[in-house]
Amino acid sequence: MVRMYDLIEKKKHGGVLTGEEIRGMVSGYVAGDIPDYQMSAMLMAICFQGMNAQETTDLTMAMVYSGDTADLSGIAGIKVDKHSTGGVGDKTSLVIGPIAASLGVKIAKMSGRGLGHTGGTLDKLESIPGLTTGIDKERFFKIVDEVGIAIIGQTGNMVPADKKLYALRDVTATVDSVPLIASSIMSKKLAAGSDAIVLDVKTGSGAFMKTLDDSITLAKEMVAIGTGAGRKCCALITDMDVPLGHAVGNSLEVAEAVRTLRGEGPADLTEVCLQLAANMLFMAGKGTVAECRALAEAVLADGRAVDVLAAMVKAQGGDPAYIYDTSRFPAAPFVRKVLSPADGYVTCIDAEGCGIAAAMLGAGRAKKEDAIDYSAGICLHKKYGDRLKKGDVLAELYASDEARFAGAEQKFLDSYTIGEAPAAEKKLVYARVTADGVERF
Amino acid sequence: MVRMYDLIEKKKHGGVLTGEEIRGMVSGYVAGDIPDYQMSAMLMAICFQGMNAQETTDLTMAMVYSGDTADLSGIAGIKVDKHSTGGVGDKTSLVIGPIAASLGVKIAKMSGRGLGHTGGTLDKLESIPGLTTGIDKERFFKIVDEVGIAIIGQTGNMVPADKKLYALRDVTATVDSVPLIASSIMSKKLAAGSDAIVLDVKTGSGAFMKTLDDSITLAKEMVAIGTGAGRKCCALITDMDVPLGHAVGNSLEVAEAVRTLRGEGPADLTEVCLQLAANMLFMAGKGTVAECRALAEAVLADGRAVDVLAAMVKAQGGDPAYIYDTSRFPAAPFVRKVLSPADGYVTCIDAEGCGIAAAMLGAGRAKKEDAIDYSAGICLHKKYGDRLKKGDVLAELYASDEARFAGAEQKFLDSYTIGEAPAAEKKLVYARVTADGVERF
Repeated sequence: MVRMYDLIEKKKHGGVLTGEEIRGMVSGYVAGDIPDYQMSAMLMAICFQGMNAQETTDLTMAMVYSGDTADLSGIAGIKVDKHSTGGVGDKTSLVIGPIAASLGVKIAKMSGRGLGHTGGTLDKLESIPGLTTGIDKERFFKIVDEVGIAIIGQTGNMVPADKKLYALRDVTATVDSVPLIASSIMSKKLAAGSDAIVLDVKTGSGAFMKTLDDSITLAKEMVAIGTGAGRKCCALITDMDVPLGHAVGNSLEVAEAVRTLRGEGPADLTEVCLQLAANMLFMAGKGTVAECRALAEAVLADGRAVDVLAAMVKAQGGDPAYIYDTSRFPAAPFVRKVLSPADGYVTCIDAEGCGIAAAMLGAGRAKKEDAIDYSAGICLHKKYGDRLKKGDVLAELYASDEARFAGAEQKFLDSYTIGEAPAAEKKLVYARVTADGVERF
Repeated sequence: MVRMYDLIEKKKHGGVLTGEEIRGMVSGYVAGDIPDYQMSAMLMAICFQGMNAQETTDLTMAMVYSGDTADLSGIAGIKVDKHSTGGVGDKTSLVIGPIAASLGVKIAKMSGRGLGHTGGTLDKLESIPGLTTGIDKERFFKIVDEVGIAIIGQTGNMVPADKKLYALRDVTATVDSVPLIASSIMSKKLAAGSDAIVLDVKTGSGAFMKTLDDSITLAKEMVAIGTGAGRKCCALITDMDVPLGHAVGNSLEVAEAVRTLRGEGPADLTEVCLQLAANMLFMAGKGTVAECRALAEAVLADGRAVDVLAAMVKAQGGDPAYIYDTSRFPAAPFVRKVLSPADGYVTCIDAEGCGIAAAMLGAGRAKKEDAIDYSAGICLHKKYGDRLKKGDVLAELYASDEARFAGAEQKFLDSYTIGEAPAAEKKLVYARVTADGVERF
């Protein structure tokens, strides 16, 4: 058994942990032989001293093998997974999954729930009446095989080391370490068993990584881990200074995803989805990235992926009528229009502030146990770069309880910055990171 | 109540904790409201980011006020305390306490036990048959008042924050941080209530601080804390590359302390004791440092402090006959002479290795619960700088169980380095640190 004290001391002084030491540490921690107070000291030491590529890979693999792993070999075709580091208004999984599946790629995706200012794909899907994300492995594989796509919550005892480590990091201010983030994300993706993984690393004020350089660093580490583990892996660095699309909130976002699948989505969301989908298709061997983008564009033009999404919803127990007619989603009983207090231009919409405002309206959770109001949220009418006149509607806020507008409206308004001159144009996708290197756009 | 997460995050990013935050953190931790895993993350962050002078003082005072403090105002005269950061063969407390007391200074000292390679004053004293160091406050004060000196274990609920923090630091590799060491030592000294404090900061291979600069940094922080708390405070930086004196082991060290009080002690031990005693007397207002040294020399010349030590031993329940005739101490049944394997000069005696060898013989503890063999230990015949012929006796090892020689002899021998040329002369005292600055010798 490893002597945890010695490992902490080694890492504290900048030493490199061996694979054996890391495996002993992870298995000892999961088994309860290593107490939380030693692990939290180690995590803090890692925050300061970092981990090299080999250590990060060793940590990731030790986490993968701490529990069950999914064997997707029974599903025909190439299985491609996608992960986003989390953002506000980020409903890309609901768009690019159906696009890729409609072109023959298999999407066996395990997703998460929202916490804090970011939403979660499972919560969004569960706003569809009847739909469940708690599906056992056999049925999950069957849906993927037949429909091409299924999105469920984690099944079985997958990556228990990550669950335990993440809970500890969350209360000891040791979340923001690149090797810890990379190993946490990649251990879950590797355990989930797909052949290829596209990573959407958000950057900007509403993202975990606030700067482009930090985002690229994280993306490189994750791509290296994925490639090292024998998977195809690439990452796009996408903007999260401002929310993606117009809708923030669960059923609001499902409706926007469907509009996007019909080719009627917001320009920013559509563009990010096309680039992500193109990379998924590329990794599935469907052509060059440019060819794959053209394939994805054709899917949005003819709307065929709406049928795939509807089929998935049906297979997961939901009512597909909500996909074909999103006006069926119950509307929130209270709507509050937020008006522009001045003439000018939108020079910033702080994504994090906007996400917190949506959570205050009922769309998100402050604690894991909190219930979600699926109809609550925000619809942005004015976005980054738009010209404003005083009194223009910036957005509509939706809530089931009028009292929720009190704090949320001000929080939302504070997230807008109105300037006198138009803001500089923003990139939606900053860079693409592959095993071969970084391509900046 | 403080939000510990926020404080960890603040310190991790190099922020300065306010007095209120530090007090909330310490009281919350002692009360059990802040869990170990958060405190260990904070301790590790402090190891990396440090604490400024104000934070260190705030931490020290918060620890002092976490429990009982001693009020020595009932004892007439100036009370002077002494603290050593711990060494091998360090029996200075048993020498300088009686010297100072014989000159009218009051010594109300709370001491500790040995752990690892260093010995503890309480263990040494308890090698005297009958003597107890578990004495209640009233009797303690009475002995100090009447005899001038008493040395006991901590009474009551003093500095519980330090006990809890130290235990956590000990298992999370967060011991070696200057503000944490300084606050731990000084909280105990301030709570113990003396008017003045002399600190003996050991430096070298057998000490906690391996370099002179680190030792001076620690000494400056501790002197600043003591002075800031309204006490007189100074520190000497003394050598602990090699053991102090010839004896390592409990009753062996008591006997050497008595020889030193008679003016017959080893030169190195005598010199360090004279300088420490001079500073204690100086802070008690007995004259200039030079005058005080002369006073101390006179005490060693006439042996009067032996009577003070014997009186203390008697007052604490021990048999003073052992002080007047140290040959009464039971001798270890087994003696092993260690011979020099070569001609040459002693160019190094690694104090730590020597201390571990003594512990292996039975003189020390590896764990808190271990029993001590008071007669076990080492008597060095050849010290740093001495010329050697092959076959000369380097030292005698003492044990109650012959089997203990097996590992200890080699460990001891490994601590000696024998060179071909004489080693450079070594300083015994490197510097004196006062509130006014650092005086290097």
